[in-house]
Amino acid sequence: MPFSRTAIIGIGMMGASLARALKKHSLSGEIVGCGRSKENLNLALNSGFVDSVTSEPTEAVSGADLVVLSAPVQRLEGLAGLLAGRLQRGALVIDIGSIKGKMVSDIQSLMPAGVEFVGCHPIAGSERSGAGASVEDLFNGAQCIITPTKDNTEEMVQKARELWEALGSRVRTMDALEHDRLLGLVSHFPHLAAYAMINAIEDSSEGAIGLSGAGLKDTTRIAMSPSSLWRDISMLNRENIIPAIEGFIGELEKIRKHLKEGDSEALEALLRKAEIRRKSIEG
Amino acid sequence: MPFSRTAIIGIGMMGASLARALKKHSLSGEIVGCGRSKENLNLALNSGFVDSVTSEPTEAVSGADLVVLSAPVQRLEGLAGLLAGRLQRGALVIDIGSIKGKMVSDIQSLMPAGVEFVGCHPIAGSERSGAGASVEDLFNGAQCIITPTKDNTEEMVQKARELWEALGSRVRTMDALEHDRLLGLVSHFPHLAAYAMINAIEDSSEGAIGLSGAGLKDTTRIAMSPSSLWRDISMLNRENIIPAIEGFIGELEKIRKHLKEGDSEALEALLRKAEIRRKSIEG
Repeated sequence: MPFSRTAIIGIGMMGASLARALKKHSLSGEIVGCGRSKENLNLALNSGFVDSVTSEPTEAVSGADLVVLSAPVQRLEGLAGLLAGRLQRGALVIDIGSIKGKMVSDIQSLMPAGVEFVGCHPIAGSERSGAGASVEDLFNGAQCIITPTKDNTEEMVQKARELWEALGSRVRTMDALEHDRLLGLVSHFPHLAAYAMINAIEDSSEGAIGLSGAGLKDTTRIAMSPSSLWRDISMLNRENIIPAIEGFIGELEKIRKHLKEGDSEALEALLRKAEIRRKSIEG
Repeated sequence: MPFSRTAIIGIGMMGASLARALKKHSLSGEIVGCGRSKENLNLALNSGFVDSVTSEPTEAVSGADLVVLSAPVQRLEGLAGLLAGRLQRGALVIDIGSIKGKMVSDIQSLMPAGVEFVGCHPIAGSERSGAGASVEDLFNGAQCIITPTKDNTEEMVQKARELWEALGSRVRTMDALEHDRLLGLVSHFPHLAAYAMINAIEDSSEGAIGLSGAGLKDTTRIAMSPSSLWRDISMLNRENIIPAIEGFIGELEKIRKHLKEGDSEALEALLRKAEIRRKSIEG
């Protein structure tokens, strides 16, 4: 087994999914789940997702050679500071969060000698939350972005890469700031747009979403994601999300103009371009 | 069987799905498929979705007591005019289009004595097109809106209602103009928003959508819908779609403002409201 003991700090949907995937692929010896929700801990333990549980992060990481920081993103740095003194030499510390930016080097700077933090972002998830919503195959076939820094050794970056590849993910490495810019565009901003769409419809005509077909349901599914999570991600990455929203408003205004002017040719050109672009990705 | 002969004028994804559903539920004797695409006609005939095919609408409706106008929405009125003289007394003529408005009474006014047109809009579909994309159970569990006018008899409206209920749809009746206002909000505008989102992302960073997770894929799935179809629907219903887009831009601007001001409380209040609203509908 590549890892003899894994500590998963934060046993929600993502953390529990990772625990299950590690077990399925026999990538770790004992897996310790750590979290603040007794309900999630009990569920993870009783379902066999993890081998033991604790509510003490410092206890969880003791003797671990893989530490997964899967708590909410704004808590990661504090957590890293808390755990730093208890990490075992040689341990690989990763996160699985949606935001990287400065945090990656900040956390690395907290690591003791011989311990490395490698930022990881598996692009997988669901609008559901909690260990009960975990999915064993969540990372299989998904993309995973790794954001190494100059402080990382080749060896540890490779170890992180092999971990995700063993779970069936397609791995790309990327600069942390570039990661945030791109994810602001393809993930963070679309979440906000989905929430905004629901409010725009319901504010205009209460109950109208009751007429939704599969189209609107698909389009707004991510508006069922936990709003507190997306508040935090949005605030942390607002410098990238604001221009994405502005670009989107610009596109909507083009469409509005074509509609106002009855310019069906110009409208179709826009729609056609988007249709071709969207069809170029699978799923 | 409620109908002895059905003519389906337009054997694309929607028309072919209806033919299949009528067969499955034994609601009609001979079903004639009519269309301009030889490929769709052959596929429908060879797959047994219909019993015979023709490219002549006037031939198709001869002797039919159910006529389904499932051609593109901007062709329906011309088609109704063309067919009027050939319709059998007592026939029920329906459409399955996404736009109703003035068209419903315009078509009804073209009908000969003893023939009624009842506007129907099954809220079901997919981003795929053509008879090969048809789905036998497309209407099962879906909503269907019927837009009767003062020219319709109770009897014929009831006949239309029973048809859709027999296919498993939940039927609501609604004024045609109210239908267009609501569908502009919950269907037409979201399609345009999905196309706009793809263009905004790709114009900002070409290739970025290659990083899409399930979230963005769901959100933009309807941007794979045929752009020519949505150009037409959008133009026909632009008076309702323009205010929907404007309301959406207003919501996006609120979010942008909260992000700029770092007002995470106000942001969360918006997201939370949308989360609760979205969770109130299934799927």
